[in-house]
Amino acid sequence: MTPSVDYRLVYWPKLQGRGEFIRLALEDAGASYEDVARGPQGMTAIFEYLRGEQPGQLPLAPPILVHGELVITQVANILAYLAPRLNLVGDGDDERAVALQLQLTVADLVAEAHDTHHPVSTALAYDEQKDAAKVRSSAFLDARLPKFMGYFEHCLERANGGDFLVGRAHSYVDLSVFQLMEGLSYAFPRSMSQLSSRWPRLTRLRDRVAARPNVASYLASERRLGFNEDGIFRHYPELEGE
Amino acid sequence: MTPSVDYRLVYWPKLQGRGEFIRLALEDAGASYEDVARGPQGMTAIFEYLRGEQPGQLPLAPPILVHGELVITQVANILAYLAPRLNLVGDGDDERAVALQLQLTVADLVAEAHDTHHPVSTALAYDEQKDAAKVRSSAFLDARLPKFMGYFEHCLERANGGDFLVGRAHSYVDLSVFQLMEGLSYAFPRSMSQLSSRWPRLTRLRDRVAARPNVASYLASERRLGFNEDGIFRHYPELEGE
Repeated sequence: MTPSVDYRLVYWPKLQGRGEFIRLALEDAGASYEDVARGPQGMTAIFEYLRGEQPGQLPLAPPILVHGELVITQVANILAYLAPRLNLVGDGDDERAVALQLQLTVADLVAEAHDTHHPVSTALAYDEQKDAAKVRSSAFLDARLPKFMGYFEHCLERANGGDFLVGRAHSYVDLSVFQLMEGLSYAFPRSMSQLSSRWPRLTRLRDRVAARPNVASYLASERRLGFNEDGIFRHYPELEGE
Repeated sequence: MTPSVDYRLVYWPKLQGRGEFIRLALEDAGASYEDVARGPQGMTAIFEYLRGEQPGQLPLAPPILVHGELVITQVANILAYLAPRLNLVGDGDDERAVALQLQLTVADLVAEAHDTHHPVSTALAYDEQKDAAKVRSSAFLDARLPKFMGYFEHCLERANGGDFLVGRAHSYVDLSVFQLMEGLSYAFPRSMSQLSSRWPRLTRLRDRVAARPNVASYLASERRLGFNEDGIFRHYPELEGE
C-alpha cells in the first residue's frame, strides 16, 4: 500500500467491470488513488477484505473503496460518497438524490447487461447457459436497452440545455453513462449502432465526456484496461443474432 | 392529493413490491404521508409521473417519492434521502455510507429473488419461463440466498452487540432486512425454515423489528397488503422443488 494516497480502490486487476465506474470518477477528478490489486499485493488484497481480515465494514464483493478508516462497497454508494469530495456533484440534498437515482438506474441496466450472458446462474459458465442467454439477450435488445437509454435521453431533453444529466454541470452520472455506452457498444455493436440515432443528446454527452482532458488521457493510458469476456460487457456475436 | 402531508409515495396500490420497503420506513417513523395510488386517483397518479406530465425529475419506474418539489425514485435512494429526516440513520457520512451499502446489498438480493420467477424476461409471464425459473431458483436457494443472508449475519456478528446492522441504533436497513426476510419466507418457506438456524442474529433482528410498536400496529392494519403472486416475492411451490 502507498500510505500517501487519499483513496484506495480494491478491485479485480484484469477487468474493467463495475470498478471502472469508480476508476473513471477518480481519474476525471485527478484524485490521488491507488488501484490496490494492480499493485504488488495483487488479488490477495481483495481476499483479505472479503475474508474479514481487515477492519471496517465487511464487504460482500468488490469494488471496495478505502478512505481512512472507512471501507465501503457498492458502486453507486461509493460514487455518492466520493462525488462531493471530488467536485463531481452539486450541492444540496435534492441534486444529490437526483444523481443517485440516475446512478442506480445505470446500475440496473448494468445488471441486466450482465444477465444477458448469465441469465440462469453466475455459478455456471456462459457456455452452459448459452441458449437461455440468447433468449434473454433478445429481450434485452428489443425492450430493455431501448427503454433505459430512451429514458436517459428523455432526462437530458427535460434538463436545462440537455448537456448534463444532473443540474447544470458535469457530474459522476455523466461519467457513468459514458462508460455504460462504451460497454454496451463493445458488447452489442450492431444494436448500439442501429439505435444510436434515437439518442442524439446521449451521443453528444458521450463525445463530451471522452474529450475531457483527464478522461482522454486516462483512456489513452495503460491504466485503462480493455473490455474482455471476463467483465460485465462481453462481446458474444451470437447474442446479437449473428 | 392531500396537501397537508409531508411525503407522497406513488406506487402500485395492490402489492407490497419494492414500495413496501418505503412504506415500512414511513410507518415505523410515524411520518405524515399519503400512499397516493391507493387513494381516489388510483394508478392514474403513477402514469402521470411516468408519462412526464408532472414536474420534477422524470421517473423510470415506481416507487416514486414526492417531497415538496423533489421527485425521486429507486428504493435505496429514497430511503437514504428519508432516513436522516425520519431519524432512521445516524449522523455522519461514514455511517450513512455503510447504511446505503447494506441497503444496496438488500436491493441486489431482492432483484435476484425477483429473477427466480422471471429469469428470462420481464415481458413474459411466469408460465412462459417456468423451466428456466426452476433452474434459476435452485441456484438461488443453493448458493445466492445462503451467501447473502450469511453475509448479513456476519455483519451483525462483527457489529457492536449484534443488534443493529448500522452503528448502535435501529435504522432503515434493519427495517429492510426484516421485510426481506418476510418476503423470502413467503416465497420459499421450506428453505427459509431450514436455513434460519444458521442466522440467529438475523432471526432476533426480525423479531425485534416486528415488535416495534409502529411496525406491529402497521402489520396488523389494513394498510399492510398481503404478499401475492404479482409482487417480487411469489410463492410458487414448484420453485422450491415441491
